[in-house]
Amino acid sequence: MTTESRRGCLVLLSGGMDSATCLALAARSDPPVHALTVVYGQRHAREVRSARLLARHYGVESHTVLRLPLGPLLESSLTRPERSLPRSGVTPGRIPSTYVPARNTILLSIALGYAESHRLPVIFAGMNAIDYSGYPDCRPAFLRAFERAARLGTRTGLQGRGIRIRTPLLRLTKAGIVRLGERRGVPWELSWSCYAGGRRPCGRCDACRLRARGFREAGVADPLRTGPARSRRRRNR
Amino acid sequence: MTTESRRGCLVLLSGGMDSATCLALAARSDPPVHALTVVYGQRHAREVRSARLLARHYGVESHTVLRLPLGPLLESSLTRPERSLPRSGVTPGRIPSTYVPARNTILLSIALGYAESHRLPVIFAGMNAIDYSGYPDCRPAFLRAFERAARLGTRTGLQGRGIRIRTPLLRLTKAGIVRLGERRGVPWELSWSCYAGGRRPCGRCDACRLRARGFREAGVADPLRTGPARSRRRRNR
Repeated sequence: MTTESRRGCLVLLSGGMDSATCLALAARSDPPVHALTVVYGQRHAREVRSARLLARHYGVESHTVLRLPLGPLLESSLTRPERSLPRSGVTPGRIPSTYVPARNTILLSIALGYAESHRLPVIFAGMNAIDYSGYPDCRPAFLRAFERAARLGTRTGLQGRGIRIRTPLLRLTKAGIVRLGERRGVPWELSWSCYAGGRRPCGRCDACRLRARGFREAGVADPLRTGPARSRRRRNR
Repeated sequence: MTTESRRGCLVLLSGGMDSATCLALAARSDPPVHALTVVYGQRHAREVRSARLLARHYGVESHTVLRLPLGPLLESSLTRPERSLPRSGVTPGRIPSTYVPARNTILLSIALGYAESHRLPVIFAGMNAIDYSGYPDCRPAFLRAFERAARLGTRTGLQGRGIRIRTPLLRLTKAGIVRLGERRGVPWELSWSCYAGGRRPCGRCDACRLRARGFREAGVADPLRTGPARSRRRRNR
């Protein structure tokens, strides 16, 4: 295996606004891009449709949708249809019921195996530690520790060519992510954030609230809230 | 959640001799035992039958067999039927083609999510760093790094009640594992090690070689090689 053969990247693509922005950055900096969407038993698969549309929009080299029957194993209001979703807003210092135990550890592990198998030197992931829901596995300390474990636990890492985990949104606010995505032309209308997964965003769950605040603070209209027609007009100005 | 409610353990049960020994230890030290078998796309499911038999033998509280379609994603001779298995024996310092990228990171991540969801404070895993196939994710340094990431990336870890990963075989030789298992009455005839997965062990793959050497050095007859009838006689003496 030559050094030259190790190019490109893997993007963990949920279909949300953060992973959409990550994909836009990766498509520019580390082509060719491979995208991986993991359906791990969350309530709805509405996001998967968004992931497919985003992958097509950016002309990725490959897009894998991996369905893992982890729902019954992982206790969370996201994986239990009988539990109600929190609508009270995010409380600093409190981990909400939408926390899925070890979710990012599982997603990053699978991405690691994929990237090493396909000789991709970089993984992009959209974790964000500022305007987030208080999940412990979105914090820089966790990501550093995971990257260290990944280096020690893989052949590539042992050979001194460890796989880098890039989290370019880690220290941005949601408004910062919206501004960055606007500059890179992210098609927000293709992304999906709502936990409830109806035909339109519920506007009340934590994910909808964080998204709305981000767009509001950035002074940008969210085409998902205002309707695609208005969004297209705005884009065609 | 009270401290009292956090008891029991999760055993990663592949069905091989190492995880069988782990299960025997866990059943004694940390009941009730939950077992998790992950079929991740390896060549054969012969081991799964062994895992079921072992779980029944030890009367586990629950046994989950999780089928994950990871085979096409992970490049290894264990997940690619068209690739031949190495039969030349283990070469120190060389990682063989049976290495599955990030396998243990993936298995431990899922175990972590399961254990946290079910309030189990301990995970047992049969990694072994002495008589092993040279896999980087069987080494103590990797396991320590993973445990640290697990502590930082989970709610339980943040609350100072991190989930312990116990690897009681880590520093034993295969012969040491056989001797330990003999003392604990492990039913070796129910376990399965061979990578090839025919009706009887092939006797030539790395897993068969390591197993045979372990039994030989421990001075114990392997009932899988000598036939179950002889094994039963031996046990009934």
